[in-house]
Amino acid sequence: MRRFSFSDPGFEAAFAAFVDERRDTPEEVDAAVRDVLAAVRAEGLDALLRFARQFDRVELNESNLRVSAEEIEAGAAQCPAQVREAIAFAAARIAAYHARQRPADAAFTDEAGVELGWRWTPLEAVGIYVPGGRAAYPSTVLMNAVPAKVAGVERIAMVTPPGKLQPAVLAAAKEAGVTEIWRVGGAQAVAALAYGAGPIRPVDKIVGPGNAYVTAAKRRVYGTVGIDALAGPSEIVVVADGANRPDWIAADLLSQAEHDPAAQSILITDDEAFAAAVEAAVQEQLATLSTGQDAAASWRDHGAVVIAPLDEAPRLVDLIAPEHVEFALDQPERLADRVRHAGAIFLGRVTPEAIGDYVAGSNHVLPTSRAARFSSGLSLYDFIKRTSIVKCDPKSFAVLGPHTVALADAEGLPAHSRSAAIRLGQS
Amino acid sequence: MRRFSFSDPGFEAAFAAFVDERRDTPEEVDAAVRDVLAAVRAEGLDALLRFARQFDRVELNESNLRVSAEEIEAGAAQCPAQVREAIAFAAARIAAYHARQRPADAAFTDEAGVELGWRWTPLEAVGIYVPGGRAAYPSTVLMNAVPAKVAGVERIAMVTPPGKLQPAVLAAAKEAGVTEIWRVGGAQAVAALAYGAGPIRPVDKIVGPGNAYVTAAKRRVYGTVGIDALAGPSEIVVVADGANRPDWIAADLLSQAEHDPAAQSILITDDEAFAAAVEAAVQEQLATLSTGQDAAASWRDHGAVVIAPLDEAPRLVDLIAPEHVEFALDQPERLADRVRHAGAIFLGRVTPEAIGDYVAGSNHVLPTSRAARFSSGLSLYDFIKRTSIVKCDPKSFAVLGPHTVALADAEGLPAHSRSAAIRLGQS
Repeated sequence: MRRFSFSDPGFEAAFAAFVDERRDTPEEVDAAVRDVLAAVRAEGLDALLRFARQFDRVELNESNLRVSAEEIEAGAAQCPAQVREAIAFAAARIAAYHARQRPADAAFTDEAGVELGWRWTPLEAVGIYVPGGRAAYPSTVLMNAVPAKVAGVERIAMVTPPGKLQPAVLAAAKEAGVTEIWRVGGAQAVAALAYGAGPIRPVDKIVGPGNAYVTAAKRRVYGTVGIDALAGPSEIVVVADGANRPDWIAADLLSQAEHDPAAQSILITDDEAFAAAVEAAVQEQLATLSTGQDAAASWRDHGAVVIAPLDEAPRLVDLIAPEHVEFALDQPERLADRVRHAGAIFLGRVTPEAIGDYVAGSNHVLPTSRAARFSSGLSLYDFIKRTSIVKCDPKSFAVLGPHTVALADAEGLPAHSRSAAIRLGQS
Repeated sequence: MRRFSFSDPGFEAAFAAFVDERRDTPEEVDAAVRDVLAAVRAEGLDALLRFARQFDRVELNESNLRVSAEEIEAGAAQCPAQVREAIAFAAARIAAYHARQRPADAAFTDEAGVELGWRWTPLEAVGIYVPGGRAAYPSTVLMNAVPAKVAGVERIAMVTPPGKLQPAVLAAAKEAGVTEIWRVGGAQAVAALAYGAGPIRPVDKIVGPGNAYVTAAKRRVYGTVGIDALAGPSEIVVVADGANRPDWIAADLLSQAEHDPAAQSILITDDEAFAAAVEAAVQEQLATLSTGQDAAASWRDHGAVVIAPLDEAPRLVDLIAPEHVEFALDQPERLADRVRHAGAIFLGRVTPEAIGDYVAGSNHVLPTSRAARFSSGLSLYDFIKRTSIVKCDPKSFAVLGPHTVALADAEGLPAHSRSAAIRLGQS
């Protein structure tokens, strides 16, 4: 854990350098991924079954590659009622929040008489990658599938590595209306979704988190299909005054740290004694945490406590451009409204970031690694696209046509010029 | 040029295969690009100057790397008045169209009493790549810079390969308010914008068209910065009945073909005699076109004429998911409204696609290579991003908290669970 104090000489430079530190593992996986993609593209199902043997140590065939409707039903039924209820609660809230994001189509006639506008339409088919093992989260299914459904996407194909399917994951799939689930993971799953393979038909876009292989594969198929942002390790900044309970704030810091040894948690406070109390509470809570090993490594290597006037917090937050930021203060808007670069903002003393991971309704897929400078969390917009519409009549074309000719001629594009000039009777 | 007839046996399969044909050159450039990016990242300005010598055969230094305000002014003044006027006309229309895309922020309290919403903010710094030589287009500057300005982006850094700067390009930069222009092209320009190099400070997002090296570099820096879509060769589909003038439609087809031997132009018509007349007009116009060599290659290798009932056109257009589609018909909306996948739609007999390239106001940066299935043209949305906002009070937290605990426990994330439970007095 690093300590910074705003009053230290050299604070600005030291803090900026800390923010710039890379936390991702450098990728040595790209060549392997290239070969996997090429094999699936060329051989389809055969390659998928071979990689399942080779990487996952399972024998699959065309008939058990897909999780059957009975398996989904039976698995979901094993999920405890309380968790099923929480899943339904979360799904309804996510649906309601994302439904409000639907943009209107536009149609207007401008002063030149040109009819202009645009129209939004949903994607047809979306693939969702759901990691396997311990990281198989029902919330991943909900946060990716529910907005796609709300957008009107007809087909959602979920892929997840072979192995025991978590009851909660299947309950989430059932709740979200996901009926197409394939036992395939890694770069080969991304390839199957992008190019099609055996019974898996290609999709238009691939979303969902994955390891370095999955991320490298998504980068490579981008263009053939759409992808969501490339997710890095999770981050939280907590801006808190001394009136908070140190154990509450410690829990919030650890809720990111427990995700990954590369995750990052930063406390910004103006109260040194409070900071010390939070640090102590972190150590105390770490001792009893089943995820304590990862959380301790994250806090040790990437955690930070910054002592600074709270008025400076918005600027420091913008430097970090974090995935999540909490303002655990009275009147939190006073500072939060000055933040420009953050994936999601949590306001007040009783809004821990974890509610955003599950049930707030907002999406938990958010930009990491300073990507909040240029990108947004997953939303309805990821599952719709826009078509521009232009219509001239002879009168408005007479206004636009000559300028088109002038510009096309200036660019040395005579066929462009002619297609306008010929309608002006000039060619 | 390929001919298809809807009534031919095997039409569906043959047409689908045609649509799937790759038109991009396979990229053998990725390794070279990787090395260029690494060199600029490690050595900064020195690497830029070395690559300028090596690739562009020019000697640059820190003082002439940037195009001076005087050069912009003097160059713009050389641009003919008629072209400057057309540039101003286009810029105003692009600004007006994109200003209508600005989405509203949201703030609402839901039935659980949770305050929710989101806020849109502009990116701070955007880089625009403008190709050099013959492909240095003023319209590229306008279509990328004007929406960024409208969005509220404070800094726009334009990069373009060393060499004579076209007066029209400088006039467009001046009109769009672009004052920061650097003489650097290729993958090294992308690296300089992404990582910073010497006097070039890093940006948050890179947009603008480029060759295979530029495209490969953009793919590699994606994540460090945002990028626009990866542009492929241009495309047009013209849906036309026999009441059109064949020479008008021929000009429209050639206006895409002249961009690139890999461009694609497709005519869909229900009138065989009309199709033959268009083909003849294409040949006639090719003979007089200064861009005829590229246009002829494009038409020969990738052009197509499809004879089909016009009612089938929307479905065929969706298979192609083209960058541009014209409906040169009376009552064009009847068919156009059924299209789902297209970058831009041009309606009626006097709306040639070329007006969309310059002055319609809509953006000419549009998805190619079937990317209209999952993505949209460049817009205001490319230059803004969204921050989610969540605020609970004790009462609404009492509703959301227990479900958060249930889901966090199901996912095996005890710190997440504790951050909610502790505020419920349960931990």
